[in-house]
Amino acid sequence: MSNLKASTDVLVVGGGMAGLAGALALRENGADVTLVEVAPAFGEVGAGLQMAPNASRVLKRWGLLEKALEIGVQPKHLVFRDAITGEELTRQTVGGEFEERYGAPYVVIHRSDLHRILLEACQEAGVTLVNDVLVQKVETDGDRARAYTAKGEVFEADAILAADGLKSTLRAIVASDGPVNSAYVAYRGTVPITEETPAADLEDVIVYLGPNCHLVQYPLRKGQLLNTVAVFKSPSFERGEEQYGGVDELQAAYKDCVPAVQEALKNLATGIRWPMYDRNPIETWVSGRMALIGDAAHPMLQYLAQGACQALEDAAVLQDAASNRVFTAEGIDAGAWEDAFREFNETRAARTARVQRTARIWGESWHVDGVARVLRNMLFKSRGDNNFQYNDWLYGRNEPGAPAEVPAGAKLVEA
Amino acid sequence: MSNLKASTDVLVVGGGMAGLAGALALRENGADVTLVEVAPAFGEVGAGLQMAPNASRVLKRWGLLEKALEIGVQPKHLVFRDAITGEELTRQTVGGEFEERYGAPYVVIHRSDLHRILLEACQEAGVTLVNDVLVQKVETDGDRARAYTAKGEVFEADAILAADGLKSTLRAIVASDGPVNSAYVAYRGTVPITEETPAADLEDVIVYLGPNCHLVQYPLRKGQLLNTVAVFKSPSFERGEEQYGGVDELQAAYKDCVPAVQEALKNLATGIRWPMYDRNPIETWVSGRMALIGDAAHPMLQYLAQGACQALEDAAVLQDAASNRVFTAEGIDAGAWEDAFREFNETRAARTARVQRTARIWGESWHVDGVARVLRNMLFKSRGDNNFQYNDWLYGRNEPGAPAEVPAGAKLVEA
Repeated sequence: MSNLKASTDVLVVGGGMAGLAGALALRENGADVTLVEVAPAFGEVGAGLQMAPNASRVLKRWGLLEKALEIGVQPKHLVFRDAITGEELTRQTVGGEFEERYGAPYVVIHRSDLHRILLEACQEAGVTLVNDVLVQKVETDGDRARAYTAKGEVFEADAILAADGLKSTLRAIVASDGPVNSAYVAYRGTVPITEETPAADLEDVIVYLGPNCHLVQYPLRKGQLLNTVAVFKSPSFERGEEQYGGVDELQAAYKDCVPAVQEALKNLATGIRWPMYDRNPIETWVSGRMALIGDAAHPMLQYLAQGACQALEDAAVLQDAASNRVFTAEGIDAGAWEDAFREFNETRAARTARVQRTARIWGESWHVDGVARVLRNMLFKSRGDNNFQYNDWLYGRNEPGAPAEVPAGAKLVEA
Repeated sequence: MSNLKASTDVLVVGGGMAGLAGALALRENGADVTLVEVAPAFGEVGAGLQMAPNASRVLKRWGLLEKALEIGVQPKHLVFRDAITGEELTRQTVGGEFEERYGAPYVVIHRSDLHRILLEACQEAGVTLVNDVLVQKVETDGDRARAYTAKGEVFEADAILAADGLKSTLRAIVASDGPVNSAYVAYRGTVPITEETPAADLEDVIVYLGPNCHLVQYPLRKGQLLNTVAVFKSPSFERGEEQYGGVDELQAAYKDCVPAVQEALKNLATGIRWPMYDRNPIETWVSGRMALIGDAAHPMLQYLAQGACQALEDAAVLQDAASNRVFTAEGIDAGAWEDAFREFNETRAARTARVQRTARIWGESWHVDGVARVLRNMLFKSRGDNNFQYNDWLYGRNEPGAPAEVPAGAKLVEA
């Protein structure tokens, strides 16, 4: 094979959060890992990201939580308000009892900061990182898996992790589905926090819930930046127009909202419009020596803020599944990859499907009007702080499908 | 005036619950009261009626509660279930703490039984009851009010109570509105309770909540009869058809409901279809010497089961307002009727408007589907038994606009 570019234990396709986390996890198991990324440089677009305890527990187990806390912010509360009246509907204090219950803090962090932390960890751990690689095809059913690139190169590996995101090419091997457009569009923005920034907005994650729209706001970078996300249903998308969700629709969507919300729209970068997609859950993420991970496996709407969190959970569960089978006391048993992938898939699929489905319904409940809004507001207001009944399944320790806090049979490579 | 049929202190137009209660209340104040009814005989159509404590307190103050309890049923609980799954959503125990808090029992009673109790009380108190009288016009702005009948007779009185119901003719004097069709249709039925009747259904008021439909079931007549009401949104009404809400639509509306609900449809009398109407609240019920009372003043949807209850409250508040002004220690001051009516109106209008509006929203919340149903069910399930936060404004003692438990400055006529 004259065009063999690299031979490795594990090839990871895609250098987003899921790819980096998966690469790190398997490298920590002791694998030689090569990660290929289509972009000419590693990086992340987008603004803030919420790391709930189920995700920060994974960072903690990898020894990366301190780094995240150095640059991120631990908000005091998650606060939900009605966007039309401004009325507070419910709040969760995320320090104290919450942090104790879930064993790790709630952290908000710039996407690029978390990405950099994972990237540096991969570099330090010895993951081989390659840019400008577009994988077009994989073979996964032989003794060795092979990835064929647009340039005609071949990467050979015991196993391939497909971390190529929402628009995954490699998912086609296990499913013939496509992304589902939610008709909602997001605009994001980060602006410096100044003396004019309302002080009330600097400590909390605040979500304003409105009919067919919502707005999220929280501080980033130790309180230097204010992160804002505005998400609204696009009438022109619903009319079937190809160009939809423009800035005119953004303004119109929030016209009945309280001044604090309308003011916050000024903080958005209107150059990039983010259409919001997910996919329906699928049961099978594995084909022979290849497994999907992260958004490639279970892309979800953003309402539970779990996209990156579930990618981190994926990586940790995969780490344990492989550790128990592939990385044995006698060395690497490459023949066990299919079993390891199947265990990973079986452990994770029900949980991530629940997150995908719940994110949809949760989002719907944010955008209701009429009597449904009355019911939503009454329900939210009936909830007391530190009532964890709706959080435990997602943030709780030892929930089915969530990773263990300590690696199973870990043979960590010392950094 | 050769066609003068009667001269009286008070003329009540309409012999339904509101008319009888109003007649009784003012007769107890000491007035000569004549009540005219268009039908050739007194009576009530319909099936069961729920008397919440705010209404049974009024019966108590009039000494009629014992009679109601002799023939009615005191349910053990009010139970709400999802009609699609059968799952219980919430329950309120209506004895014990509930009865103690609200100072009177929750009673379900056949409409005709409550009507008869009020009718007999009017007869015993000496109200003059006249059938076959259709009042077509009233004059209310002189020293004496006059009612002109279809037969050309005139009834003269110090004051007129217009208790002519949802389709009130006399309301036109103060408002130019009309009934509002809710697009929902009811069928009702009472069947004998037999050994085959599921025992679970005999102690409680049970409400099954379904998308665009609900079903209510409770025992009557000391547990001899089972009362069933089925209410659903009529698709043919929504299409604008004149004949709507037929039995075919009844069956179709409940097709996704649990067997217990579908079985219960067999208990309905399908010969009479009840379109459900209310009206928008109005502020003014009084014109000179005339006041509206009951449904003529504030017709409401049935979801709070407060139509008759609010009519009883009306009568008791009117009794107190007149007692303080018209029925003085020196005798009847007919000139004070306008003040008495205005006080009655001012005391009651905000409360009954709230009941009208809340009944609409409450009904909407029963009939939701999709995410609104999820929210409704979560909200209902989050409520514990004996959580009175949603009940106090309606059932509570001494709520603004509700009658006092003991008549103000009462000069009760001994029966």
